[in-house]
Amino acid sequence: MKAGGAVDATDKEASKPIPIPKVRVSRVLSVLDFTLRVVAALGTLASAIAMGASQETLPFAAQFVRFRARYKDLPTLMFFVIANSIVCVYLVLSLPLSFVHIIWTAAKTSRIVLIISDTVMMGLLTAGASAATAIVYLAHYGNSSTNWFAFCRQFNSFCGRISGSLIGSFVAITVLVLLIIMQSVAISRR
Amino acid sequence: MKAGGAVDATDKEASKPIPIPKVRVSRVLSVLDFTLRVVAALGTLASAIAMGASQETLPFAAQFVRFRARYKDLPTLMFFVIANSIVCVYLVLSLPLSFVHIIWTAAKTSRIVLIISDTVMMGLLTAGASAATAIVYLAHYGNSSTNWFAFCRQFNSFCGRISGSLIGSFVAITVLVLLIIMQSVAISRR
Repeated sequence: MKAGGAVDATDKEASKPIPIPKVRVSRVLSVLDFTLRVVAALGTLASAIAMGASQETLPFAAQFVRFRARYKDLPTLMFFVIANSIVCVYLVLSLPLSFVHIIWTAAKTSRIVLIISDTVMMGLLTAGASAATAIVYLAHYGNSSTNWFAFCRQFNSFCGRISGSLIGSFVAITVLVLLIIMQSVAISRR
Repeated sequence: MKAGGAVDATDKEASKPIPIPKVRVSRVLSVLDFTLRVVAALGTLASAIAMGASQETLPFAAQFVRFRARYKDLPTLMFFVIANSIVCVYLVLSLPLSFVHIIWTAAKTSRIVLIISDTVMMGLLTAGASAATAIVYLAHYGNSSTNWFAFCRQFNSFCGRISGSLIGSFVAITVLVLLIIMQSVAISRR
């Protein structure tokens, strides 16, 4: 394997980090930023629609009462829909700015503006999603100490719907965390 | 306008902002960062203790039942205490790093590490606080559609306690948002 000396040297040459132009990395980060924003916008949109459209009427009725469950019955689920809608609109509005960053990679002030607004929106979305999760948990398991009973035994399809609608929201939260991290890395690279 | 060339140059000189030493501003930001971290740590500590210590036993009892409310009866409130404790420990552990930034204002990588961990911790704390808020809201107002009744009519002091314990947590969330914004400004200044 001595004959491999020359090969080793070539290997070392090859393993030297190839200098990547800063602009190119920043551009890749910006493109990723744009794509992730689209994903998060779709996630929040799906969550808002799934929750907003969730309702179930049981196939039987008492004399004066129809048994119907809607998201509007629970203020927390309404807050969830509102928070998701606001964040979805924000994400769509932030797309042009994100697109500008792909072309003009040296932008700094606008990136800071994005970090600040992303952080606030992440807070809003997390608040909505986790409050809704607390309610969905109660709907599934109830609470014996407080006599809050689990209505999921009756409203099966409604419960499946409101549980599923949380997914899009949590995907969007993860994406927003990634966006904040990526922006701060992009700022520090310059 | 050819003759105005010299005048233009003078104008440009005059309109230049007075140079503030970058290091000094960064140092002020770092001191503020340290102080805010202490405030947030105290807020989460107070929240965790207030919620953890909240319990009430009603001054009457049925034959086999004593009416007692504890935060442990509601899993969401337990999550609140755990989230606040984790964030409190994190904030205390981040103090040395924040102190290093006061002395070594040029630090960049460690600031990015702080932004990333601050963002994650903000998410955790927001999740805990807003889930607890959803439950506290139910405890106060109940929900007639789902037959979840408001137990605050009976457990008055317990309810006051769990409502109050939310304050420290929301103060800490606001502080964490400020910290993330300040760190990104500090990074961009260099």
